[in-house]
Amino acid sequence: MDYSNFYSANANLMIPSPIRRMAHLTQKPGIISLAGGYPSIETFPMDIIRQLLEEAYSRRGAASFQYGLTRGNRELIEWLADFMKTRGVMTNPENILLTSGSQQALRLLADVLLSPGDVALVELPSYTGGIAALRNSGAELIGINQVDDGIVTEDLETTVIRLKAQRRRVKLLYTIPSFQNPSGITMSTAKRREVLTIARKHDFVIIEDDPYYELYFGDRPDTPTIKSLDNEGRVIYLSSFSKILTPGLRTAWVCADAGFLPKVEIAKEAADICSSTLDQEIVLGYCRGGHLARHVLNIRSFYYGRRNTLVQALRDSMPAGVTWTEPRGGFFAWVRLPEHIDTEAMLSASVDRGVAYIIGSPFHVNGAGKNTLRLAYSKEGPENLQKGVAILAELVSEWMKSPEARSGR
Amino acid sequence: MDYSNFYSANANLMIPSPIRRMAHLTQKPGIISLAGGYPSIETFPMDIIRQLLEEAYSRRGAASFQYGLTRGNRELIEWLADFMKTRGVMTNPENILLTSGSQQALRLLADVLLSPGDVALVELPSYTGGIAALRNSGAELIGINQVDDGIVTEDLETTVIRLKAQRRRVKLLYTIPSFQNPSGITMSTAKRREVLTIARKHDFVIIEDDPYYELYFGDRPDTPTIKSLDNEGRVIYLSSFSKILTPGLRTAWVCADAGFLPKVEIAKEAADICSSTLDQEIVLGYCRGGHLARHVLNIRSFYYGRRNTLVQALRDSMPAGVTWTEPRGGFFAWVRLPEHIDTEAMLSASVDRGVAYIIGSPFHVNGAGKNTLRLAYSKEGPENLQKGVAILAELVSEWMKSPEARSGR
Repeated sequence: MDYSNFYSANANLMIPSPIRRMAHLTQKPGIISLAGGYPSIETFPMDIIRQLLEEAYSRRGAASFQYGLTRGNRELIEWLADFMKTRGVMTNPENILLTSGSQQALRLLADVLLSPGDVALVELPSYTGGIAALRNSGAELIGINQVDDGIVTEDLETTVIRLKAQRRRVKLLYTIPSFQNPSGITMSTAKRREVLTIARKHDFVIIEDDPYYELYFGDRPDTPTIKSLDNEGRVIYLSSFSKILTPGLRTAWVCADAGFLPKVEIAKEAADICSSTLDQEIVLGYCRGGHLARHVLNIRSFYYGRRNTLVQALRDSMPAGVTWTEPRGGFFAWVRLPEHIDTEAMLSASVDRGVAYIIGSPFHVNGAGKNTLRLAYSKEGPENLQKGVAILAELVSEWMKSPEARSGR
Repeated sequence: MDYSNFYSANANLMIPSPIRRMAHLTQKPGIISLAGGYPSIETFPMDIIRQLLEEAYSRRGAASFQYGLTRGNRELIEWLADFMKTRGVMTNPENILLTSGSQQALRLLADVLLSPGDVALVELPSYTGGIAALRNSGAELIGINQVDDGIVTEDLETTVIRLKAQRRRVKLLYTIPSFQNPSGITMSTAKRREVLTIARKHDFVIIEDDPYYELYFGDRPDTPTIKSLDNEGRVIYLSSFSKILTPGLRTAWVCADAGFLPKVEIAKEAADICSSTLDQEIVLGYCRGGHLARHVLNIRSFYYGRRNTLVQALRDSMPAGVTWTEPRGGFFAWVRLPEHIDTEAMLSASVDRGVAYIIGSPFHVNGAGKNTLRLAYSKEGPENLQKGVAILAELVSEWMKSPEARSGR
């Protein structure tokens, strides 16, 4: 049966993510993958998880396997309300809601906040999963440029003023201010304050997506969470256990206005009733048992090492004219090639030589970024990082020298 | 901050379920709850679960805790494609997608199929979670009457014809054909065939929600799944492990047209990337280990006993003028009081006497059912079922005799 005539208006906006769309290319056996932004399974604390499984099984017995509260495991909510202090936020359990990963939070927020025709502002580039979540509610996504220290705040304000003059409703800004996916950029403290000031002045909401907060390299950054600067509930803060425990245990949290969260809770009730109760029990044990603080020490040094390997390899081998970010945390570096090189056209040649990356254009809601690409250093070990960058650099050099080479071979 | 001005059009349609809305009344300590349709935690096979946890931990090691496929655990999909034979459906892995409970499937299907103004047909009464999932996409829900053997097929066809004459787009019928939540009604074989014929003739889709399939009492019913009668992919079949293992392990499946499921998969990717990978590993072990067949034998007899206790108590104590369904499976009986009694008005008196039920009106998208209520026999043991029904019957008798009593005391 042909379903094409049955799809909703929103369904016609739904397209697969570039990561999934190119999976047939990038997941070939033996390929060096700088593509998917998955945490390394080497970092998963399996001995701790075994113990947490046993505890979760025993703690409340069969009751742990019943339907849970839509809002989430009450004890974990209480723990997180207190934990938010470490991110500069004095808050309460009624300000916390648990979700099945931050992806679910993004989709629920889109559903609750965005009507078709509303405007959501996103960074250029931005996370494709966030873009999909917002776009699937029929909103128009408008991009704001970023530079080395984050969003260009002048562009943000002039864009908002222009849209308001066009009688468009700007509902929200979606930002990943620390070690951004995909760019690796961190927004400066001054810009965090400015962004919040502009949001107040022009009355829009900020969704602050902060999954990499704990994954800084070297000293803890002095950049505050935007949420910690917010005294009126304008910032909806998201964070997750995907990068600081494991992503398969689908557990994340939202910290937001207490009057607003009940609406998100109702949307979640219709979306899945509740998240996995076992996953939440495991995460509760992880938090209460004090494992988090020790584990993040390990993974910081693990990913810092890989980041350094990747950055050094880029410095060693990339030809002049290529630039990249050198992230102070997270999983990603962002590479900009000369304007005339199309990274999508180059991808199959790269895969033929054994290296996969993610093309930059799908991270740009304005269609730009054709000469950019994202490199993840989270999955591959040091040797493959060096080898992969060397192969890629050679390919880029060829494509820079010989415009004909752009045909693909 | 006041978010009321920020809500989307869909958010303004979102209301909490009656079960959650009345939780402050129905979850008082010591109350006999015939309200929530939760499986009994006494039935959870905890020894098996302990073993399955160990297996899930060991089977693929850390890889089990990585992000999973959006489509779901591949081995579990293959198992389910084969398992669908036991429900009369010859199918393939590309026809299966796993979701975080059937609630997620319902919400994703609504998102993919329904635009504001489209019509979704639902049974009178129908499951409130299904109603919420469909309504939250802005569709208009129109109810079709049910009698003892299911939906009134003449009403179904005349309603569709009337709506088409009004140039309304009828996209789908949502049905729970076996041991329906909330009514306990099972649709006859003849009606299943007729419903499918009408859907073909007037070109709409059928969502067949079948969580209670295994929970029949006595002999296996001879009613086929509607999906087994479908040779063109018009039926989207949903079922779940919530009632045949545990609901906290959020694992359910969709069996549908192979050309259609990729759209649902894209919607799911934006909704939560993937379901809990640990939960899916546990369910995989449960299925492969042959535990399902043994476990459903136990729970059939468990719930059959409870159903018989409830039905006998209703027969023993309810006054003439009160009718109820005597379900052949599932968790629920449906009680109809004389027209003048408002079960919502009566609820606080019932709770004061120690018995909670769910009022019938929220299950009716046409605003009817004010004199109806749902009784779940899944949670309470035999003594409380008898005691609860006796208290309720006395209260109903009083309200039938004395119209003044309807003030609440």
